[in-house]
Amino acid sequence: MKVTFPDGKVIDIAEGESLYEAFKRNNIYLTASCGGKGTCGKCRVKVLDGEIRVENYGKLSQTERDEGIVLACQSYAEGDLSVEIPMEALLTVGDKIAVSRSRDLFELLKSYKAEISPLISRVRVQLPPPTLDDNISDLERLKRALDEIGLTLSYPKEFVSTMADKLRRYNWDFTLCYQKDSMEAISIEPPEAEDSRYGIAVDIGTTTVVVYLVDLSDGRVVDVGSTYNSQMRYGDDVITRIVHATEGKGLPDLRKAVVTDINDLIVPMTEKHSIRPSEIESIVVSGNTTMTHLFWGLNPAYIREEPYIPTANLFPVWKAYDSGIKIRRDAPVYSVPCVASYVGGDIVSGVIATKMHTKEEIALFMDIGTNGEIVIGNRDWLMTAACSAGPCFEGGGIKNGMRATNGAIESVKIDRETLEPEIKVIGEGQPVGICGSGMIDAITEMFLSGIIDQKGRIVADLNTDRIREGEDGLEYVVYRDSGRDIVLTQVDIENLIRAKAAIYAGVSLLLKEVGFSLDMIERVYIAGGFGNYIDVEKAVIMGMLPDIPRERFQFMGNTSIAGAYLCLLSEQMRQEAEQVASMMTYMELSVKGSYMDEFMSAMFLPHTDMEQFPMVKEILGK
Amino acid sequence: MKVTFPDGKVIDIAEGESLYEAFKRNNIYLTASCGGKGTCGKCRVKVLDGEIRVENYGKLSQTERDEGIVLACQSYAEGDLSVEIPMEALLTVGDKIAVSRSRDLFELLKSYKAEISPLISRVRVQLPPPTLDDNISDLERLKRALDEIGLTLSYPKEFVSTMADKLRRYNWDFTLCYQKDSMEAISIEPPEAEDSRYGIAVDIGTTTVVVYLVDLSDGRVVDVGSTYNSQMRYGDDVITRIVHATEGKGLPDLRKAVVTDINDLIVPMTEKHSIRPSEIESIVVSGNTTMTHLFWGLNPAYIREEPYIPTANLFPVWKAYDSGIKIRRDAPVYSVPCVASYVGGDIVSGVIATKMHTKEEIALFMDIGTNGEIVIGNRDWLMTAACSAGPCFEGGGIKNGMRATNGAIESVKIDRETLEPEIKVIGEGQPVGICGSGMIDAITEMFLSGIIDQKGRIVADLNTDRIREGEDGLEYVVYRDSGRDIVLTQVDIENLIRAKAAIYAGVSLLLKEVGFSLDMIERVYIAGGFGNYIDVEKAVIMGMLPDIPRERFQFMGNTSIAGAYLCLLSEQMRQEAEQVASMMTYMELSVKGSYMDEFMSAMFLPHTDMEQFPMVKEILGK
Repeated sequence: MKVTFPDGKVIDIAEGESLYEAFKRNNIYLTASCGGKGTCGKCRVKVLDGEIRVENYGKLSQTERDEGIVLACQSYAEGDLSVEIPMEALLTVGDKIAVSRSRDLFELLKSYKAEISPLISRVRVQLPPPTLDDNISDLERLKRALDEIGLTLSYPKEFVSTMADKLRRYNWDFTLCYQKDSMEAISIEPPEAEDSRYGIAVDIGTTTVVVYLVDLSDGRVVDVGSTYNSQMRYGDDVITRIVHATEGKGLPDLRKAVVTDINDLIVPMTEKHSIRPSEIESIVVSGNTTMTHLFWGLNPAYIREEPYIPTANLFPVWKAYDSGIKIRRDAPVYSVPCVASYVGGDIVSGVIATKMHTKEEIALFMDIGTNGEIVIGNRDWLMTAACSAGPCFEGGGIKNGMRATNGAIESVKIDRETLEPEIKVIGEGQPVGICGSGMIDAITEMFLSGIIDQKGRIVADLNTDRIREGEDGLEYVVYRDSGRDIVLTQVDIENLIRAKAAIYAGVSLLLKEVGFSLDMIERVYIAGGFGNYIDVEKAVIMGMLPDIPRERFQFMGNTSIAGAYLCLLSEQMRQEAEQVASMMTYMELSVKGSYMDEFMSAMFLPHTDMEQFPMVKEILGK
Repeated sequence: MKVTFPDGKVIDIAEGESLYEAFKRNNIYLTASCGGKGTCGKCRVKVLDGEIRVENYGKLSQTERDEGIVLACQSYAEGDLSVEIPMEALLTVGDKIAVSRSRDLFELLKSYKAEISPLISRVRVQLPPPTLDDNISDLERLKRALDEIGLTLSYPKEFVSTMADKLRRYNWDFTLCYQKDSMEAISIEPPEAEDSRYGIAVDIGTTTVVVYLVDLSDGRVVDVGSTYNSQMRYGDDVITRIVHATEGKGLPDLRKAVVTDINDLIVPMTEKHSIRPSEIESIVVSGNTTMTHLFWGLNPAYIREEPYIPTANLFPVWKAYDSGIKIRRDAPVYSVPCVASYVGGDIVSGVIATKMHTKEEIALFMDIGTNGEIVIGNRDWLMTAACSAGPCFEGGGIKNGMRATNGAIESVKIDRETLEPEIKVIGEGQPVGICGSGMIDAITEMFLSGIIDQKGRIVADLNTDRIREGEDGLEYVVYRDSGRDIVLTQVDIENLIRAKAAIYAGVSLLLKEVGFSLDMIERVYIAGGFGNYIDVEKAVIMGMLPDIPRERFQFMGNTSIAGAYLCLLSEQMRQEAEQVASMMTYMELSVKGSYMDEFMSAMFLPHTDMEQFPMVKEILGK
């Protein structure tokens, strides 16, 4: 029997095999915290056509059942099916482009001349076996030997509990694992430990969660997984999440949501590569300050209240069991350090991924995620600020928005005469939505071809059926399909212009504060989920990026995960991250009166003040 | 309605009130891990007479039911009752003599010139509130202030989790609790913390468990509780327990048994004094090496195998949650350090309680518990050894044996003519058994009045009905009661002689090893549960104590709990304990060939070699 998806993809399914299992066998991973028992209710799919036997509807409402929604783990094909998987049920695991792109990270690590030194250090120890004359206790014997090599550790009960048996099993010749940061003994392993060991690097974005499974012996990225941050159901941006965290069980709910997302990604990745979760021995998380607080269950309320104080910027290294991440119980969890309430570990990661803090040239770093954070400076100084851009470039709050993964429209060209679009789709299959770079292209092309005006308003009376009245007012049809059109609505466009205006206003104000003009910026690093696909020319025309020579722009992709990867593998990189965090000066834009002026001026395409966009002015012929 | 006990005590009981509740209201505490739900099956009592309604027999066997055994928490009086409480179901809480005697401990602490400095230290901290200009995170703000007073701590997640709210609640002016040993932050408390805080000192004996509830603000012993170590059901001595620990679930069972005993004592003590378990903020345990290993769930197998190596002698300070003790979750748990496999924290406690390590005079310390441990030395050197004496002086393995608490026969005199005994009972009520000092008296008196010979054999043909044939052969009736006679059997006497021989042989051999004669011993400290009641003259005649001038003997009572008390209250005492543990040299007697000779020679009353007992020789007129 066959299952067909809206994008045309077809997989086979056997009798007695649940949809969940069949999808997994075909590398289509669904969120399922309960592991396919029908209890978590997350693996919802919509059956569009065909005969299906449903064992259990779980908590699905009658309305949902009527719409053809079933739980994939409780449903079995009785013939050929046509099935649609909602975005939020889908985990992206094993994205080949992402995996291949991750290869560059090891080169980056090497460029720092950093050795591989994960959070758990190892030292080979050989002890003289005890005798009647040398009858000190096992622990004193170990301490005596470590004293000789200048290692003073603390010994948690879990370590001591199994010590006596292990010392004898390995005949007093073993590998000692310890955590250098806390100088804490972790475990005793065989002398020639050939065991594979893995680590997890996590980017906790406000909108998306990305997980890299890394082989700690050679730095290889074994696999990449990503999903939406399911905190989304409690609000799109950090502010609404902070508000939610202060209400009732809000904080534990938010913590659990993101921890479950990470666990949900770890499970299929480890299964796919036949790795036991206990072989994952350390983890690094990189996220903005609020995300890092929520991950640890720390009250983020004071981040939002003047004078905007986080509980911590530099987090102690705690344990997997403190976090709820289901890997080796006592695995150390490192949080990439934050700078201030609105500039977090993701930005520190970005700086070490760009190396701007090691060079003489003045660089501007822009991370265009759910928040827009910017850094300016060089090896001597770093200034940073945040501007609330919203989640739209990651697909949030945009009708057909999605992340930059397979099926996303990543670029759009519109014929100036016919107003017909030409699209490019990631993975080259059927398009299922539009990602950040596609949105930027679309807005700019619509502007250049006159579909929208300088304020972003769709012009109603053009000679094209691509513009039509939709549920949310006027919309432009980017891709036409029977019943599943991909559109950009007037509301989408307004959201996108607000987002780009917030980013540009931030850059503009920060430059003014440090007394720099745009032409003094020798390099612009652009980070964010869409980074590698963006058309810089169009982003400048739109007024999101400053109008400076195009060759100065460099796209960095997801630098938050890059920083997490670097810190996962190297002690030197963790120290580097801490140095960067402490050298950055944070500027609170929201308390500057002039921010709102800058923002309002940027609400045009490209800007109210065309003098700031000389090259665009020329293109537009104005 | 009334409940009458075999010793004549009468209490009232109301309708609808369980026996368990009625007993508790009258300060009779039964073991009940389940808190009176009928599930743990521990509060077994025997109904001798009267009408009783039993709601639930729980796991009691048919044989037990036939014998009149019921669970006190599931049974209700329907009229006047006569009830017997088996020894093992009874917790001793609030023993007035023990509480009053504990007052001396504070004097001991003062004699060390030690300040009260429990495991949790406190420091008042006042932070400048954050502003837009001074906007470092809460954790960095705290660290900055502590840096100024030279305090560098680590910050566990539990501390950081509640920090932000507490700092603001106390308006940046608070008391910081931290653990000096591990330099770990514990909690933030109000600035003028007037909250009562308590600690628990525990002596984990092989046979008995003693718990002191201590007010940490002034060192006052609030209450004292004791019970049998319920590991007893797995074996009487450390060797059988070690063997049990290596079988199947033996180790966790043993750990759970003693932890439950301690929890069972803490519950009634805290209830009685209206203290919340969370107010108990630290705990010190003192026990022999095996007991300390079992308490922490560490495999004790290698203690028993040559070369007799414990996992640890100096234990890290772990947490209440690591141990299963149900007090404040993150309360530090300090284990009084051990010396070797058979000389443990109880003996280190003993040395610091006697102060023998601070004086010039050569002293001998003897702890006569389930093991007999001995220490010889002064402020310059300390030698120690162990001899397996068995549990009989604590009541174990003796037909009517019991601990030295209310109802125990503590002294015995036998009329040389009539062979009739005259007894003294602790608490002065009806006797219910005989404790260690009573046994020593009885043996010696029986010996002096010719009831037993030099080998301890009961002489059958004397003109007295006190000697009779019992279930276990000949026996002497120490106390006569209708159906509940208290006797010493031939088997009891043999066990006692074996025990005293083991102790004397140990002393004898250790003295030989250090090249000392008995007359060089300027002081003998006797410790053990019976310590305060013992008749030294009789113990010498019996051949348990060496025959040296009587004024050199000093009785110390339970020095293990004394050491735990000292360490609970003072950092200086913890350091003292660690210094004593490291300065003691352990001698393994069991590998000395001459030990068995010494033991066999001591199997007489008082000894084969009467030259070692010159004063006794004179008394006996031999």
